[in-house]
Amino acid sequence: VNVAGVMSGTSADGINVAILRITGTDEDIRFELLAQSETAYPTAVRDALLRLMNAQVASVPDISRMNFLLGELYAQAVQRAVSKTKLTTVDLIGCHGQTIYHQGESALHLGKRVSCTWQLGEGAITAARLQTNVVSDFRPADMAAGGKGAPLVPYLDYLVYRSKTRGRILQNLGGIANLTAIPAGAAIDDLIAFDTGPANMVIDACMEHLFDKKYDAGGKVALSGRVLQSVLNKLMRDRFFRRKPPKTAGREEYGREYLTHLLQQCRRAKKEDIVATATALTAKSVGIALERFVISRVRPHTFKDYVVAGGGLKNRALMKMLAVEIAPFGLTLKSSDDFGVPAQSKEAIAFAIMAYQTWNRRTSNVPAATGADRRAILGKISYA
Amino acid sequence: VNVAGVMSGTSADGINVAILRITGTDEDIRFELLAQSETAYPTAVRDALLRLMNAQVASVPDISRMNFLLGELYAQAVQRAVSKTKLTTVDLIGCHGQTIYHQGESALHLGKRVSCTWQLGEGAITAARLQTNVVSDFRPADMAAGGKGAPLVPYLDYLVYRSKTRGRILQNLGGIANLTAIPAGAAIDDLIAFDTGPANMVIDACMEHLFDKKYDAGGKVALSGRVLQSVLNKLMRDRFFRRKPPKTAGREEYGREYLTHLLQQCRRAKKEDIVATATALTAKSVGIALERFVISRVRPHTFKDYVVAGGGLKNRALMKMLAVEIAPFGLTLKSSDDFGVPAQSKEAIAFAIMAYQTWNRRTSNVPAATGADRRAILGKISYA
Repeated sequence: VNVAGVMSGTSADGINVAILRITGTDEDIRFELLAQSETAYPTAVRDALLRLMNAQVASVPDISRMNFLLGELYAQAVQRAVSKTKLTTVDLIGCHGQTIYHQGESALHLGKRVSCTWQLGEGAITAARLQTNVVSDFRPADMAAGGKGAPLVPYLDYLVYRSKTRGRILQNLGGIANLTAIPAGAAIDDLIAFDTGPANMVIDACMEHLFDKKYDAGGKVALSGRVLQSVLNKLMRDRFFRRKPPKTAGREEYGREYLTHLLQQCRRAKKEDIVATATALTAKSVGIALERFVISRVRPHTFKDYVVAGGGLKNRALMKMLAVEIAPFGLTLKSSDDFGVPAQSKEAIAFAIMAYQTWNRRTSNVPAATGADRRAILGKISYA
Repeated sequence: VNVAGVMSGTSADGINVAILRITGTDEDIRFELLAQSETAYPTAVRDALLRLMNAQVASVPDISRMNFLLGELYAQAVQRAVSKTKLTTVDLIGCHGQTIYHQGESALHLGKRVSCTWQLGEGAITAARLQTNVVSDFRPADMAAGGKGAPLVPYLDYLVYRSKTRGRILQNLGGIANLTAIPAGAAIDDLIAFDTGPANMVIDACMEHLFDKKYDAGGKVALSGRVLQSVLNKLMRDRFFRRKPPKTAGREEYGREYLTHLLQQCRRAKKEDIVATATALTAKSVGIALERFVISRVRPHTFKDYVVAGGGLKNRALMKMLAVEIAPFGLTLKSSDDFGVPAQSKEAIAFAIMAYQTWNRRTSNVPAATGADRRAILGKISYA
């Protein structure tokens, strides 16, 4: 069947769509990428979304309107991607939605312990506009099963990268950096997957604050600066880097507050040096994570490939620093593009496949990655 | 199959559950009510919910937590109701959720016309706790089909009350008063259904403000007062009462602002008289609605029964006033209890049946009631 996957990341830039032809079930799933597209959010929508994330002061009517509005925008984005193929429509849509809150750890609220997650984008609207069934809201079912609701992409990693002979580590560099380690010959429960810390979220925030630019194109600014070693050392003392996986991070950890904290540490430093340091923070936290929670935990050490995906792949400064970090482990640096999973569409592809699983009433969370007690069928179905 | 329906009304008092045994499909659906239960919300939850409704200032994290918390509370409430039966579990749950916003009319938002609706109560949580599939979020699909997302209960009304020989008018008196008129021998598209105006919402608000009580028990306060005729006349000039159906009302129309408006009109009046006037407002708006939009519109006049459901049934002052209003139309006043649909469980029963329809991929909106362009499969499925 032909399935569209729709993803909007935490940076709220816009909408990624992947159109897949999928066959098989569970571990025998095969897919072919028919088309992909990126659609920027209208500026007013992006601004409103960034304001909503974790907001203490939000308008209930406006959130509700945004939920339905995103359902419309997702439908348009899917339509655009479909028009790049020879298809006139798809059979199913998997839509992640836009996360505006995620609390992976449970805490007491009004007398009961709850963890929670929240993605906007009304599935019924998208389903009606395209006359196609939609699966949305993937994360709650994993949390209901005791998981953190993230990361979910390891399911795709397992399908694409598992190998009898080569252990592989998949590194995604989106707003947050997360990795999935798949030892040679691993079963799905042998995966190690967790967020290693920030990636573009902190770098982008520095660029916005210091240079009024959205991101460090090609890593040029970081390449022109020097890493502030003492600041980096301080930042690396963060409790998060010591916590054992599974663990997740988000705007809660590496958002506005964190930027303020980082800038305070850097005080009189050159702006380029601050960006270089933010970039080094990502690389270093990946290196530490590999050492502590992956390489030293899997014996024998079967890992051969280190496969990078996500926007960070275009940041040459970051890639140079990462090469240094992985050098001790004898890994070959590769791009996810080499495996038929273009970096920018990875998550959209993952949610297309998860929707396909859900439609077939099959599970698609990876308990080893999310910490869930059991496999769960993810998402909610809206019929066209 | 055995299905639980779960409803939480706009007054946010608590959770109604109905357990049904259902057979057949579409118009041939038959059901038997096995048990019903009412569970009050914990006070802190109710207070938080009332604060959230239409709030301009709300915390995104708190809303998200509430969504998951309600999923837990709904699971507990269903469990309680199941334990009143001989069953150990049900096969399916239909959960309406707690509405915190509803905008039936579309309006421009960030450059796009949207209408929207929002019910809290995470289906994935309820599904996981009871290991039972859940249908939730019934209203968006009707709105995606161009409807106002309300009222949905006419679907049940049609199943229960249609008759070849007796036209029937079903009057629900919850927070809002709504009616469904089913002419003798009507097809589902011949229904007339709409909100007639306020019911307990305004009376309760008066009681809370004037007497620090939740409601007017048995209508005693209203019975001890006199209707302020000039105030009533002014209130009845409200644009809403002249608007043609389909039309819906909610806390947006008859919430806090309306109470302030009403109290201003009543200025130096006795407290009992104000409550009597609020009660008369409900009765009068029903009478006007019947005359303008039902009796005069359906020829021949086949209506015989006027069947009342909802909390208002216990308000003797209101029932007395309603008897006067319907007298000119030759209707027999009945209680929904006479038809095997206990007043307090009507909506819970309706959502059980709608969930059953959705599970079987059948439609359950009534376009004649909501204004939708077409029938739609309502709700989203969360698999256990």
